[in-house]
Amino acid sequence: MAVHEVGVGLIGFGTVGTGMIRGLQRNGDLIERRTDIRLVLRRIADLDITTPRPVQVDPQILSTDAEALIEDPAVQIVVELIGGTTVARDLTLKALRMGKPVVTANKALLAKHGGELYRVAEENEADLYYEASVAGGIPIIRSLREGLVANHIDSIYGILNGTCNYILTRMEEEGLAFDDVLAQAQAMGFAEAEPSLDIDGHDTAHKTAILASLAYGLPVSLEQIRVRGIRGIDADDLRYARELGFRIKLLGIVMHDAEAGDVTPMVQPTLIPLGHPLAAVGGVYNAVLVRGDVVGDTMYSGRGAGADATGSAVLGDLVDVARNLVSESELRIPAFVEHAHYGEVRSPDGLPASYYLRVSLLDQPGSLARIATILGERNVSIAAMLQKTEPRIENHLPVVLIVEARREKDLREALDALNGLDVVGGSIVQYRIERFPE
Amino acid sequence: MAVHEVGVGLIGFGTVGTGMIRGLQRNGDLIERRTDIRLVLRRIADLDITTPRPVQVDPQILSTDAEALIEDPAVQIVVELIGGTTVARDLTLKALRMGKPVVTANKALLAKHGGELYRVAEENEADLYYEASVAGGIPIIRSLREGLVANHIDSIYGILNGTCNYILTRMEEEGLAFDDVLAQAQAMGFAEAEPSLDIDGHDTAHKTAILASLAYGLPVSLEQIRVRGIRGIDADDLRYARELGFRIKLLGIVMHDAEAGDVTPMVQPTLIPLGHPLAAVGGVYNAVLVRGDVVGDTMYSGRGAGADATGSAVLGDLVDVARNLVSESELRIPAFVEHAHYGEVRSPDGLPASYYLRVSLLDQPGSLARIATILGERNVSIAAMLQKTEPRIENHLPVVLIVEARREKDLREALDALNGLDVVGGSIVQYRIERFPE
Repeated sequence: MAVHEVGVGLIGFGTVGTGMIRGLQRNGDLIERRTDIRLVLRRIADLDITTPRPVQVDPQILSTDAEALIEDPAVQIVVELIGGTTVARDLTLKALRMGKPVVTANKALLAKHGGELYRVAEENEADLYYEASVAGGIPIIRSLREGLVANHIDSIYGILNGTCNYILTRMEEEGLAFDDVLAQAQAMGFAEAEPSLDIDGHDTAHKTAILASLAYGLPVSLEQIRVRGIRGIDADDLRYARELGFRIKLLGIVMHDAEAGDVTPMVQPTLIPLGHPLAAVGGVYNAVLVRGDVVGDTMYSGRGAGADATGSAVLGDLVDVARNLVSESELRIPAFVEHAHYGEVRSPDGLPASYYLRVSLLDQPGSLARIATILGERNVSIAAMLQKTEPRIENHLPVVLIVEARREKDLREALDALNGLDVVGGSIVQYRIERFPE
Repeated sequence: MAVHEVGVGLIGFGTVGTGMIRGLQRNGDLIERRTDIRLVLRRIADLDITTPRPVQVDPQILSTDAEALIEDPAVQIVVELIGGTTVARDLTLKALRMGKPVVTANKALLAKHGGELYRVAEENEADLYYEASVAGGIPIIRSLREGLVANHIDSIYGILNGTCNYILTRMEEEGLAFDDVLAQAQAMGFAEAEPSLDIDGHDTAHKTAILASLAYGLPVSLEQIRVRGIRGIDADDLRYARELGFRIKLLGIVMHDAEAGDVTPMVQPTLIPLGHPLAAVGGVYNAVLVRGDVVGDTMYSGRGAGADATGSAVLGDLVDVARNLVSESELRIPAFVEHAHYGEVRSPDGLPASYYLRVSLLDQPGSLARIATILGERNVSIAAMLQKTEPRIENHLPVVLIVEARREKDLREALDALNGLDVVGGSIVQYRIERFPE
């Protein structure tokens, strides 16, 4: 077979862009042998083209003009790696409107403007591929929409943010405080100077929105996702959770209610059983557990971030899109297919809930009985209890409870009532528990 | 978009065929909404069309004539699920020669006749898809050749046979003997009455051949794979391995020698560190760890067998092939691309080797020294030792050694010398150790 050259234009010469170029320089020949496609980097656009990068490129292909890159007939596929949701949106729309396929790693862009982008891509018969937007180098998008296409997805549980997983892993393994590990992670470049996107769960929410939309063919917006991050999480809770047989992970979760047909996305630190495969995913690794109604549980893990892992995913998409160009099968797999097979997006209020509660309880007879009474009145049952004898703070001692409610709403109401009790000091710490029942 | 009907003919109405039909009946509407493709089962051929199956099908589409099925113009894709390598080969060739795409789960067929089938498929511009042939419902074929296409593959480690993994898991967890667990597995339908294909490692070898061929673009035949199964494995060794921090799994392994460029496939029970994610894959589950030079380690796990998991993979392939038919992009991804990027297929003789040895050693002064001397003379070093005080058999006691050799060949020669020693009773038990260094 003849080798087909396909011209690539890269917008955004940052970390991931560098990883993509390094991968292409290293394995471009191998890709060609495997696919008969030669990916040729024809142009790079970035606002900063003077700072040295750890890869060598022909200076003549560097420019600050992203629009010219898109318009260049020699650029057949546009790779968008600048991040952000304004300029990136404009440039992606421009490329798609010209009928040029786009490969992106930009989860915020897709989570915020996916609906518009998917529509414009389809209208202009241009591919829009985004494997690199979720879980770095793990081929989860393609597994979900191709390998598992015959499955109704019962649920998705993802460790989707490497920074948070790194922080939680080190906190638990070394008994360190959140602030200390965060500061170290920042010093080592594993966490951003402005860490909110990661540690407050927003990045995980972007990825959860993408996975939920894809799995259920209905647009899931960020506003529909209840998000809680790991900021300020207490090492005591990691330790108590472990005593009870659990590990805390920040999970992006998508659940399908078999009865109502509704879909519930959420992001929250979650207690998972120590023996569960997701609990073994430590450090900066990501993992996604997908439960399909035909295939059962499948799990995918790997490096969720970093120049090279994400670059690998970008290159995989580039080959896919190039194959579509070569075989003239654009839109063979549309970026997003909206359909009415499922119900609506719902909050978790109506779902059954199992929670870990840590109550700072006044050390006097009857305190625990008052808590148990209030929980019982709201049909919240106590499944396990851990009474600690320290630290004693103003005559309060920590009591850890594992409670079960038929609806999360009932639990919230019980918590409101408990937080008002005079025997309860401070506010109650609470984390959702997920047991992954068969 | 209009919905495209695509006619499917199924040859082989057994376990996997039933799973495929059940999945299609359950989720055919969902597949149509997601893909605008309606898979229509037009014909089923099987030698036995009278035994009741757990799915309902229109009796009119049942026939014993597989050739007529292939020739029927209404059948656009042929699914081959009869197993075996003779009739299955003839029928697959017939379909491909007519230009009809084939989806198969038949690993033995591909391992033995893949070269011929891939060539005929390409000559006739017919797709040949085989996701279901390796690791059941886990989308490993598509991850390897699409998601990770930009990666040179450093190594592949797979738990690829659910029966073996089930047996090893129960032996270790319950301290049971091999024969007892095998008999129970047979009674429960988890193992075949004639279990050799599974427990002697041949099934794992078939899958390893497929993965190795795909990853390195060079045909790997079964004769080139050193195969050892788990038959008769001793529960003592599982226990001793655990004391030393390891768990024994039957692995299909493919390693690439960065210096020589050669590829080494092998199948053998292997000690892996207890903390490694592969060690956590228990029961009938399968998992594949792929180490790519760009992406790093990625791991894929799920049910490796069973009607539904395998049916899910068959349906995923059917959708892929149907998409190619609809978009007229047959051979968009050829079944196999042979290329000369890598060296030859080699035995592990020249590779560094770490081994677990259990020696039944005469309990008298100097015995151990004689062993140590022989190992030392062959440049085999002892990294750890476990001296047991029971069971004493004819004045011999078990000694477990972890040894390291620069070349596996050196170790084999040392073992030959040790087995001839008068202080060594019976033959030395030996298992390879894999530590997955970064």
